[in-house]
Amino acid sequence: MSRVSYVNGEYLDYNFAKVHIEDRGYQFADGIYEVFSVIEGKIVDYDGHINRLFRSLSEIEIKSPIHKKSYYFHIKNIINKNLINNGLIYLQVTRGVASRDFKFPKNTKGSLVIIGKTIHSENYEKAFNKGIQVKIEKDLRWKRVDIKTINLLAPVLAKESAAKHNCEEAWLIDQDGFITEGSSSTAWILKSNTLYTTPLSNSILKGITRQTLIRGLKNNNLKLMEKRFNIKDIKASDEAFITSATQYVMPVIRVDNFRIGNGKPGKYAEIFRKVYMEAVKLS
Amino acid sequence: MSRVSYVNGEYLDYNFAKVHIEDRGYQFADGIYEVFSVIEGKIVDYDGHINRLFRSLSEIEIKSPIHKKSYYFHIKNIINKNLINNGLIYLQVTRGVASRDFKFPKNTKGSLVIIGKTIHSENYEKAFNKGIQVKIEKDLRWKRVDIKTINLLAPVLAKESAAKHNCEEAWLIDQDGFITEGSSSTAWILKSNTLYTTPLSNSILKGITRQTLIRGLKNNNLKLMEKRFNIKDIKASDEAFITSATQYVMPVIRVDNFRIGNGKPGKYAEIFRKVYMEAVKLS
Repeated sequence: MSRVSYVNGEYLDYNFAKVHIEDRGYQFADGIYEVFSVIEGKIVDYDGHINRLFRSLSEIEIKSPIHKKSYYFHIKNIINKNLINNGLIYLQVTRGVASRDFKFPKNTKGSLVIIGKTIHSENYEKAFNKGIQVKIEKDLRWKRVDIKTINLLAPVLAKESAAKHNCEEAWLIDQDGFITEGSSSTAWILKSNTLYTTPLSNSILKGITRQTLIRGLKNNNLKLMEKRFNIKDIKASDEAFITSATQYVMPVIRVDNFRIGNGKPGKYAEIFRKVYMEAVKLS
Repeated sequence: MSRVSYVNGEYLDYNFAKVHIEDRGYQFADGIYEVFSVIEGKIVDYDGHINRLFRSLSEIEIKSPIHKKSYYFHIKNIINKNLINNGLIYLQVTRGVASRDFKFPKNTKGSLVIIGKTIHSENYEKAFNKGIQVKIEKDLRWKRVDIKTINLLAPVLAKESAAKHNCEEAWLIDQDGFITEGSSSTAWILKSNTLYTTPLSNSILKGITRQTLIRGLKNNNLKLMEKRFNIKDIKASDEAFITSATQYVMPVIRVDNFRIGNGKPGKYAEIFRKVYMEAVKLS
């Protein structure tokens, strides 16, 4: 539940927190976002997310409406005002309000919204112990998904199609038959003791959780290959996973009709979760 | 200038017209829009636009928050309350407000916003007489641009790049080197007395102005080929145009560094404009 949100300089009751109908985020998806996980009141991977926010803003030439150093203060306030122990922060910056015109407006200040929510960690544990099911969907997204924009209708439609088939995530497949990533997560498979995930390019987001897990794996001498994989590779895999800021490491037990391993979370899921939690120095 | 806007059942002072920060239009570009031209108080191509709105809503499974017949009433009210003689109506429907989750929310009512604006017809005449310049930009959009969604960041970036080069529009070029359409208009070239425009597919929007002009051309026995064209074809063209709901027919006098014809609006620009105005029965 959200109680208080930050909207353009004010702390507002969530129910009355609004933006103008000509905010460019509403008319053009002209904005950037980040999701931060909060564990025991602490922000996970803060620097990674805030640096990616500024990289995304820079890629589409939005000037941050506040100083980089001020984000931490407002995020902490939202954590405190919403009494969040375990949960998430959703933060969005748009190009601001202007009379509708495709090209950038002059002298318009960006809009900033920060929302905080509690997540009950029992739900994560339950999902982790059971594992999730994944559906494969065509990757219909635009060609700059390396920028974390709110231009999200394609992943929304993919995730909804997955949900209609009782799957928790969609893995997006490109025209060459390779998985790019999940609709809101990074995709991984484990085959013959090697972990595969798609290499960085304009076709995937540079996942903060992905990068942290990779660092953790290097410290633990586990094999990693940043190499794209296809359906044949998935069928031959021993385990599969997704990672994201709010799902951390989550085992995948089925992709479309293919059962992964014995259809239960494998032994590496737990190992990778530990590696990740150690890497973020919260365990 | 806008004075009064329609927002979810209320007529609000434009300056105070707002939507919730968790409207899915703001977080996911999960919405549809239409722009209607208003000439001498009359709505141009009303049926074409409203039918396309409902087709778009259906494609992404958004239920209209009001009955189809009620749109006309509210649009007319906005025209009257804003004293619009010549101008436009911007209308947007989103999936509504829900706690952020990629998949569709249950039992959420869609949001509806209607904005009216006056446009001074002298500006159109001036642009028509001068002609516009076009820049070619990569088509980075998602793969379902046949649906008129607010997932518009790619055309925003294309139009901004064009504006930085003193061009009024961007023509989007696909991986095969063919022009799909303009960032917010349909693209046309005239070569050896034949008019070319890209055939309908998922790669272009079915422009209402495009369809009306094609109907008008058929009545006037002019030659038309719905066939994609490339830069070589543009260089060899005698005239070029864009069409859109708010630009009607607009001559193009330069594409990148290639001058079209003698660098001034050609004789067919005026003919096509007349054909269009007759087709909408407003001349």
